[in-house]
Amino acid sequence: MQDFCVALKDYSDSKSAVFVNGNFCKDPKLVKAEDFFFEGLNIAGNTDNKVGSNVTTVNVDTLPGLNTLGISLARIDFAPYGENPPHTHPRGTEILVVVEGTLFVGFVTSNPENRLFTKTLNKGDVFVFPVGLIHFQLNVGKTNAISISGLSSQNAGLITIANAVFGSNPPINPNVLTKAFQLDKNVVEELQKEFGGDNY
Amino acid sequence: MQDFCVALKDYSDSKSAVFVNGNFCKDPKLVKAEDFFFEGLNIAGNTDNKVGSNVTTVNVDTLPGLNTLGISLARIDFAPYGENPPHTHPRGTEILVVVEGTLFVGFVTSNPENRLFTKTLNKGDVFVFPVGLIHFQLNVGKTNAISISGLSSQNAGLITIANAVFGSNPPINPNVLTKAFQLDKNVVEELQKEFGGDNY
Amino acid sequence: MQDFCVALKDYSDSKSAVFVNGNFCKDPKLVKAEDFFFEGLNIAGNTDNKVGSNVTTVNVDTLPGLNTLGISLARIDFAPYGENPPHTHPRGTEILVVVEGTLFVGFVTSNPENRLFTKTLNKGDVFVFPVGLIHFQLNVGKTNAISISGLSSQNAGLITIANAVFGSNPPINPNVLTKAFQLDKNVVEELQKEFGGDNY
Amino acid sequence: MQDFCVALKDYSDSKSAVFVNGNFCKDPKLVKAEDFFFEGLNIAGNTDNKVGSNVTTVNVDTLPGLNTLGISLARIDFAPYGENPPHTHPRGTEILVVVEGTLFVGFVTSNPENRLFTKTLNKGDVFVFPVGLIHFQLNVGKTNAISISGLSSQNAGLITIANAVFGSNPPINPNVLTKAFQLDKNVVEELQKEFGGDNY
Amino acid sequence: MQDFCVALKDYSDSKSAVFVNGNFCKDPKLVKAEDFFFEGLNIAGNTDNKVGSNVTTVNVDTLPGLNTLGISLARIDFAPYGENPPHTHPRGTEILVVVEGTLFVGFVTSNPENRLFTKTLNKGDVFVFPVGLIHFQLNVGKTNAISISGLSSQNAGLITIANAVFGSNPPINPNVLTKAFQLDKNVVEELQKEFGGDNY
Amino acid sequence: MQDFCVALKDYSDSKSAVFVNGNFCKDPKLVKAEDFFFEGLNIAGNTDNKVGSNVTTVNVDTLPGLNTLGISLARIDFAPYGENPPHTHPRGTEILVVVEGTLFVGFVTSNPENRLFTKTLNKGDVFVFPVGLIHFQLNVGKTNAISISGLSSQNAGLITIANAVFGSNPPINPNVLTKAFQLDKNVVEELQKEFGGDNY
Repeated sequence: MQDFCVALKDYSDSKSAVFVNGNFCKDPKLVKAEDFFFEGLNIAGNTDNKVGSNVTTVNVDTLPGLNTLGISLARIDFAPYGENPPHTHPRGTEILVVVEGTLFVGFVTSNPENRLFTKTLNKGDVFVFPVGLIHFQLNVGKTNAISISGLSSQNAGLITIANAVFGSNPPINPNVLTKAFQLDKNVVEELQKEFGGDNY
Repeated sequence: MQDFCVALKDYSDSKSAVFVNGNFCKDPKLVKAEDFFFEGLNIAGNTDNKVGSNVTTVNVDTLPGLNTLGISLARIDFAPYGENPPHTHPRGTEILVVVEGTLFVGFVTSNPENRLFTKTLNKGDVFVFPVGLIHFQLNVGKTNAISISGLSSQNAGLITIANAVFGSNPPINPNVLTKAFQLDKNVVEELQKEFGGDNY
Repeated sequence: MQDFCVALKDYSDSKSAVFVNGNFCKDPKLVKAEDFFFEGLNIAGNTDNKVGSNVTTVNVDTLPGLNTLGISLARIDFAPYGENPPHTHPRGTEILVVVEGTLFVGFVTSNPENRLFTKTLNKGDVFVFPVGLIHFQLNVGKTNAISISGLSSQNAGLITIANAVFGSNPPINPNVLTKAFQLDKNVVEELQKEFGGDNY
Repeated sequence: MQDFCVALKDYSDSKSAVFVNGNFCKDPKLVKAEDFFFEGLNIAGNTDNKVGSNVTTVNVDTLPGLNTLGISLARIDFAPYGENPPHTHPRGTEILVVVEGTLFVGFVTSNPENRLFTKTLNKGDVFVFPVGLIHFQLNVGKTNAISISGLSSQNAGLITIANAVFGSNPPINPNVLTKAFQLDKNVVEELQKEFGGDNY
Repeated sequence: MQDFCVALKDYSDSKSAVFVNGNFCKDPKLVKAEDFFFEGLNIAGNTDNKVGSNVTTVNVDTLPGLNTLGISLARIDFAPYGENPPHTHPRGTEILVVVEGTLFVGFVTSNPENRLFTKTLNKGDVFVFPVGLIHFQLNVGKTNAISISGLSSQNAGLITIANAVFGSNPPINPNVLTKAFQLDKNVVEELQKEFGGDNY
Repeated sequence: MQDFCVALKDYSDSKSAVFVNGNFCKDPKLVKAEDFFFEGLNIAGNTDNKVGSNVTTVNVDTLPGLNTLGISLARIDFAPYGENPPHTHPRGTEILVVVEGTLFVGFVTSNPENRLFTKTLNKGDVFVFPVGLIHFQLNVGKTNAISISGLSSQNAGLITIANAVFGSNPPINPNVLTKAFQLDKNVVEELQKEFGGDNY
């Protein structure tokens, strides 16, 4: 343990890449202020997609100085009525503040309760999404919305439910999904085409 | 920190129940061997339900001596072609061994990869499902199947995707799900009736 | 371990207040969405003070749903040329994004190196301050500046160096500070008056 | 931190093997389902030895996908009246379920109490052995017995008391053991021959 | 999480004692410097016993301010040829410095290796005993010896092998020990009388 | 996770040094007792300096077997009226015992309280300094004093306040310090010369 362990991405052995819990530490003597720096979180993400939202993540992959330090940031842009669809972070709690616009947000607790907690958030409002729980944010205003989140991991991970379930590569056996979601096999296969894209 | 901290469930203040990270410790002098004991994991769970499977969990709620010790067990019973549908454990990795029958199992990695890893498991085969990732088990045999799992938490939590998304209480705003799953609003509302039961 | 453990602040025994790692958990059945909610981070803090800055903290003390979840947020307002003076967070790394204005920021590594890493940050720039290291932010622009930070603890703590050293209650023995800072005893005692205020 | 860090065992530098907290991570792109798989836990271990038991461990050494995930499994086979002699796991709590037969099990708390907790377990019964405490399992039936255990570490370690104390390599100075166990030096030296085997 | 959580030992409910991970936190406003203080580590422990050594422990039980802070101290006194017999700390690594005299020390690694590492230590020499491993210290000089140890837990626990195995309360079934140690039942029962004292 | 992971310092790639959380593990087969050993803590440090004290640290940098084990030791020597000036350990709590002499010690809590806790310690007295808080020790006797401390990290770090603030390399912009400490710019620049030495 040291003051920091800046991730060294470009380390390469002549024969094969080697990863150590994802990252090596850069030689402390070669570390610079730039290793703790990221720019561009003021730039709106492109929300021209099916769900009308875009997540810009500042984690150890884009800011190597975060390695071992247990925190990251994200900016989310929402088009009018855009949403950040139901998803989980397998390795982090999220605390979100609305910078612009109005968001309807919620999370669901674990089984057997499956309780839904929701709240409408305006500019300056803050909400917490506990680690591993399914949650979403929906822009309920006619204008763009922006939020900033802190996440309790240098790489909290992101599992977008619909994409993971219907858009995995290769696709999940449709029988698994037909029974799980009580859907017609036709509907499942259409969804897999929809989400799977090239994988299908 | 002590050798153990047996959960004390029946503590009650005259005015209101009080919870401390879920549990108090029982006075060590009153702790008995029974506090570390659970019986009945040899009994098959009832698989007469939509998905044809049943999970029996031995965690801190049923075995108070597990409190603070970071581990639990589960037995899963599968009817022929039954499945344990896609789900996550927000606070635990799972390692499963097949005790009887043949299971087709898999998990999906986090975005943007959404890679699916699958394997067909026979009696004595072991498989790992990393913490927080969506995974499933399907009985692909004509007979019952049984598995035993270890989980890396005294209460790993369980989020069954379809139930959390379509069966929460109260239901998630259908607009959120319509856009997220690219489904007709009709289909979403039918699913919510299907999964929500009394909540709807 | 459960999905969450909302801090219960108003628990009181008839005889004496009792604290458990700072907090009890609220009965999960009584938890509401409001327990995960905080409002007002859009409101500028009052920077009319000696250093020209103001920190608004959203941690477990103001947002009880953060309890046990390992993260918090802060908004910092800076008057023109205002600064958030050298300080440490004993229990958290900080990741800061500039929302408005231009900040000159830096941190110092531990002994014997005492290396200073600095950077000038504009709107949208992000910087990391590793846990426990002394750091500062200075508004180098003619206009107000605003930043938002994530911290890797539900209560990261704050130690403002000058206040802790010269303004503690009761004051530190001046001989300790005279030798430590190689200052005249007069200067030390003036500083103690300056920072100690009522304590002195 | 990533979804997983599959242990890379065969990494070798031309000059010398290098270990990083025991393991490197395999390049995530090369990871396969087989990395999370182990087969053969249905096969009975050979109990034809002095104590009449055999432990088959599924940990990071035999299942590389377990690396960093904090859990492992073990199968224990017992001949009639066989025992898994007093031992500790320095880095893990154990939760055991009896799959076949009848076991008498127990653990001892730390000093000065040295309290013994015991229980007779039948098929389907579960028992917990808290991390680091000395415990044992004895087959009290006339037939073979089998158990499956989860352990709260990817490599919990195993210290069999008699082997560590009397069979270390090289042997512990007999004077240390004579005084510690209040045994004749003759008895100690016989035990060291018995347990030390080739080492002696 | 706060700066500290001083253990509150004398909390008592009118009906029954309640323990929370062993301890409550004292109201921070009532905390005093004395809560972080212990006196008497200069006083030699009484080594007039079978093994000729005495351990004085400064942990959360004797110094309540250590609660949650993950460290403790111990002083060990050795009569000439006295020993601190083979033991483990289930929840802590030990780093020991010899203050007076000459000690022969060692630890044994986990199975199947059971390697013994030993060293003779003189005044000012330091040695490390990794968490959970069996270790011992023997005074090999003609004069008293003294050591000071740091342990990586506020309550590392102590399991003296001979006492836990042969002196537990109630005693372990002699059949378990006869097979485990390959000793005559007579010898086992004598040892149990020797170590069990009143318990037997 | 293994019994230990001895730090391997001399690993070097032909092109560039590579660090992994600071250290690689030495091949367990090559580990020797000497890897867990350090000598010389009986030797007084040289206190002939401005503050009249000297810290000798036994951490993972000087005792490689401590790697991953979460503990270290330090000896502090004090000339008459010497002091260990206000400092913090960013990654460790300290528990100190006075071996010789009389020390006046204290720590300051975090903002906004900034409460000072102090105590005069004689031979055999023990005191705790919680992680990350500013603390100091002053020899208030006419003779030398000696203390031994345990720290809850294999590398707790050391930030001497005056050196980090006024002696960093390069120096902190004097405007930052002028405002923070409410000092004349002249005084700040003199202090920077005093503490910065060659860096200035």
